Formats: sequence, structure tokens, C-alpha cells
Amino acid sequence: MSDTNLVISVDAMGGDNSPRVVIEGLALAAKKNPDIRFLVFGDEEKVRKELERFPALTKICTLHHSPEMVHNEDKPSQVIRNKNTSMYQAIDAVRQGQAEAVVSAGNTGALMAISKMLLKTIQKIHRPAIVSIMPHRYGKYVMLDLGANTECNAVNLAEFAVMGNVLAKHALGIKHPKIALLNIGAEEMKGKEEIRHASKMLRSSSMDIDFIGYIEPHEVPFGKADVIVADGFTGNVALKSIEGTAKLIRSMIKDAIHKSLLAKLGLPFMFFAAKRISKTMNPKLYNGAMFVGLNGLSVKSHGGADALGFSVAIGNAAMLVRQNFVATIRDELEHIDLEEISQDIYYEVY
Amino acid sequence: MSDTNLVISVDAMGGDNSPRVVIEGLALAAKKNPDIRFLVFGDEEKVRKELERFPALTKICTLHHSPEMVHNEDKPSQVIRNKNTSMYQAIDAVRQGQAEAVVSAGNTGALMAISKMLLKTIQKIHRPAIVSIMPHRYGKYVMLDLGANTECNAVNLAEFAVMGNVLAKHALGIKHPKIALLNIGAEEMKGKEEIRHASKMLRSSSMDIDFIGYIEPHEVPFGKADVIVADGFTGNVALKSIEGTAKLIRSMIKDAIHKSLLAKLGLPFMFFAAKRISKTMNPKLYNGAMFVGLNGLSVKSHGGADALGFSVAIGNAAMLVRQNFVATIRDELEHIDLEEISQDIYYEVY
Repeated sequence: MSDTNLVISVDAMGGDNSPRVVIEGLALAAKKNPDIRFLVFGDEEKVRKELERFPALTKICTLHHSPEMVHNEDKPSQVIRNKNTSMYQAIDAVRQGQAEAVVSAGNTGALMAISKMLLKTIQKIHRPAIVSIMPHRYGKYVMLDLGANTECNAVNLAEFAVMGNVLAKHALGIKHPKIALLNIGAEEMKGKEEIRHASKMLRSSSMDIDFIGYIEPHEVPFGKADVIVADGFTGNVALKSIEGTAKLIRSMIKDAIHKSLLAKLGLPFMFFAAKRISKTMNPKLYNGAMFVGLNGLSVKSHGGADALGFSVAIGNAAMLVRQNFVATIRDELEHIDLEEISQDIYYEVY
Repeated sequence: MSDTNLVISVDAMGGDNSPRVVIEGLALAAKKNPDIRFLVFGDEEKVRKELERFPALTKICTLHHSPEMVHNEDKPSQVIRNKNTSMYQAIDAVRQGQAEAVVSAGNTGALMAISKMLLKTIQKIHRPAIVSIMPHRYGKYVMLDLGANTECNAVNLAEFAVMGNVLAKHALGIKHPKIALLNIGAEEMKGKEEIRHASKMLRSSSMDIDFIGYIEPHEVPFGKADVIVADGFTGNVALKSIEGTAKLIRSMIKDAIHKSLLAKLGLPFMFFAAKRISKTMNPKLYNGAMFVGLNGLSVKSHGGADALGFSVAIGNAAMLVRQNFVATIRDELEHIDLEEISQDIYYEVY
């Protein structure tokens, strides 16, 4: 792919401290990804002021003035009707083919609603899903859905498995990703009906994936699977439980060290060990939840992300665009009919 | 209550390294709880051999020979028919009124199935639940259901809230526990239908609880609520995600220190800080998942728990028995009709 082809559309007004942090994030991302150009949507005056600090970045940015912006408290039903927001216009650029992915740190519900409306789901995908790259003990894994769909049927879960499989290949570089369904037990009869049904679907010989069965949440951090599939409610609960626990332990360690003079004296000894942990566990390095299953890629940066975090979200988007993620999912689905596989299992059972 | 009245029935054959660890756990528990007597069920010869090491404990134990034991791979449907196992007989002692609680480190599914069959649910409780005491940043909280019921309706969730409320009062000593429903967002319309319905029920003026609304999983470790209510699938996912993350971070810290000579040199400085963390976060101190909602208390110790862990499970059981936990739940439910509250909300909505 030629180096001028990779265009990413950016909502400069989303997240805390925008557009400053967003523009700083683009500057960082541009250094690491010299093949990207940006379409930047936002308050022209404010964005230009920030861009002035980065002459090299300015050259690869096309600035579009958006008179309005989506606020955190805005409801999805309102924002989909307002074509004047930076978020709407940034997503619309992908619909029009001017960019291949959009990144925003704004309101998640709004980003999902507008993306779904404008980009539409890939043919044969019923439900788009939110997916993130996460760290485990020995590497990385992807987990989906992280909250786009509160309730899912077996076909939805199987679609997530197909998309997760492509994502793990593209984003993690794993040739044959191990796919698992998140469940509360290892035995085949455990959990909910839709999970058991999805398990039978994923074992079908028509599926070209390496399905390893159920995975329990406490096994996830130890690299048993590369792709963790769950409905959006369960995935969101798992994700936020992981985040909360990590935050709890961090704060308890800080607190314990703070309360001990001896421990404070020992801190310099811990410098390299702490750096090693932060290198793999730093939440900034896992910023950028991807909204997949649409005709175009929509990436959500954390609202509180700093420039490094935002640049990681841009980097994720760029990586998937380079590898033709959307087209690959379309291809994969051309050869399988998940509805048919699902029906066959019903006939087998009854 | 007189000090000879507190009798706890013990399945000596459950868990790894039984009956050795179980008997060691009883010895520890007896030191901390001088008011307990034990009915011990198991292989008489093996148990007696272990008891010989603890003359003081032997005096307060009544040993019953059970010719068989439940194995980890046994199915609940089988074990409920075998009256000769130590687990069955230990639970049956509670049914017969010989003991007020039973503790086992054996097969969880078997313990639940036999307990449910023999002890039966409290009148007006539809579904018993598994509940644990967990550590948060500033104290402790209880969470239920942790896996007894994969799918729950609003009435079930409201029952869990009532039981959790009593438990937080009795086990945590909190006068007016704050109750929250686990959900993936804070807004009223978030999550699943049964959660939204339960939320309306818990806000009803007929409920004598302090319901604070939804709590998201990442807020749980920071003490926002004293009682976290969820269906058994969600609660189990949250619990195991917390456990897995804590284990991951522990192993990464160990690994990072192991790989750095400097950090190893700094370890002595960290002794007191590490001790402080371990004092609040040590999983042994939170052993003993309680199966509540039955006419009698059934407590599951972790299969891999050591003597200290087993003694904590015994201590939990004793504490709830002392405070008449089962009777209090019965009393609480006498004054409210959850089915009626649930119906009223349906009428309001439609």
C-alpha cells in the first residue's frame, strides 16, 4: 500500500483536555507511523492553535471546521441527528471513503450510534462489537464484546469469534489464534444456553478457527487463549473488574510504601523492576477500543487518555487499516453461513 | 447464647490434603472461638490419627464414621443419592438440628445440591445464593450471588439484596449497609431488563434497605457499596476476574523482582509494606463462601485452602450462627412480599 493512502479521520474535540491532547497524540503517532495522513475535525481556531506547535504534523493534516461537538452527557438519539459535530463529520469522512478509520476520545455511546448509522454493519454481521487488546502474563490477547451488545445469541457470539480471530491474526500477529468462550466452568454443560449453543457452532467443521472451548475469567490473564468471546454485558463486567482490581492493587502498594519510611528508602532498588512491569501493564499502551463489524473502522480512545494513549489508539487503527481488516472479515464470512450452522445444531439436538 | 450451643458440623474429607488440613484448621478455629464444638464426619481411622495431634481439640469434637466421601469429579445428581458420604452426613446433622452450620472443602456442586435438598430454602426465598466477604480499599464488602444461579429474575435479585443486607450487618458489623446492583453503567436505563426491574423494586418504600443504585465493577474495590448484588453468572465472572488479575499482578511483581538483582537487594526494605498489603489482601483471610437462603448455614471452604484458610471459613460460620443469621432472614422476609412489589412495578410500567 502506498504511503499516501493511509488516511485516518480524527475527532479533535473528544475527551478531556481536547483538542490539546488529541493533537499531541497525533504528533506522537505521526512520528511512529510515517505513512499516515490525518483529516482533523474540530473547532478550527482551537485546533489550529494547537497544530502550530507541530509544523511537521501540520503538513500531513487536513483541518475541517466543525461548528459543534458531542458532549459526554449527550444521548445517542440526539447526536445521530446533528451533522455539525466534529464526531459526526469525522465518522462521515470514513463513510465517504475519504478516510479508512476514525478515532475519537468522545462519548462512547454517541460514537457507537453514529458509526453504526453511517458505516453500517458488514453484510452477514448482525451486531458490531467492541474489542480491545489486553496484556496477559506471556503476551497479549483480544477480548470482545466489551459492551456494545448487552444480550447476545449464539450466532452473535460466533460472529465475534470470527472477527476476533481475524483481529488476533492482524493485530497480534498470531498465525492460528486460540479462540475461547468466556464461561463460569469448563464442562460442556456449564453456563447459559447461548454459550453452550455457540460452543457447538464453533466446533463445527465448517468453521476455520482453532476453538479451544470455555475459558474461566481467572484463566484469562495466563495466556490460555488469544481471543476471548463474551456477550457485551459479561465482557464489560470482566474488563471493568480487571481494571478495578489493578487500580486497587496499585493504590494499596503506593499506600503501603507511603506509610513506611523503610519502603521509601528501598524504592530506588525497585526502579528497574517497576519499569519492567509498567512496560507490559501500563494501561496507556492498551488504549483504543475498536468498534468492529462495520464497513470502516471506528476506534474509541479513553476519554482521560494522554497524548501517548491517544497515539496508541491511532496506531491500532493504522495497523488494522494496513492489513485490510474490514475486507478480510468480509472475505472470511463469504465462505461460512453462521445461521445455517446454528440451525443444524438445533436439528441435531431436537 | 450459651457457649455449648454453638455446634458446627464438619466434612473432614473434602479438599486437598484432607483430613489433615481440615483438622489443623479446626484446631486453629477452636483457639480463636472457644465457644464452638464440632461434629466431625469422615474416615474414622484417618481422622482419629490427625486428631491425636491435638488433645484439646479432641475434647470438643464428636467423631462420626462416614464410610464414603464425595470426589471432585462426582456429579450432584449422584451424590444426593448417597447417604454414606461424609459430606452428606455432615449436612444431614444440620437438618436434624444437631449442628447449626456445616463446613466442607469438598466439591462445590455437590455441597450445594445436598444442602438444598436436605436443608430446603427458607420460606419466601426462591433461590439460595453463594456469598463471600471480600476486601476493598477501605474495608470489606459482601457480594452475591457468586455462582449458584446462572440466570436470575428481578425477585431473585431482590432476595439476594435482603440476604446481603442482613449478612453485611452481621458479618461486617455495618449498621446500615449500602446495597448496590452490579451493572455496566450508572444510568437507570442501563443493563438488562431484570436488573432495571430489581432496581425499581429495591427503591420501593416497602424495602427497609439503603439501596444506592447501580455500581460498576471497577468501582467495587473502592468501597462505594457494602453489598454487591448480581446474578450468579455475572457475580462469578466478576469474582474470578478479580482473582485472576490479583494473581497476574502478584506473579508479575515476583517475576520482575526475580529478574533484577537490584530489586532483590531492595526486598528487605519492602518487608513491612508487603506485610501491610498481605494483611488486608491475603486470600486466605477471605476463605469460606457461604451458601445462604437455606434453613441452616452451609459454608464452602476453598479446596486448596490451608489450615488458616479453613479456620477462617469455620470462623465465618460461627459468627453467623452466633448472630442468628438464618432466623433474622426469616424475620426480615416476614414483613415484605417481594412478589407483590415486583407486580406493582409491572402495573406502574404498563
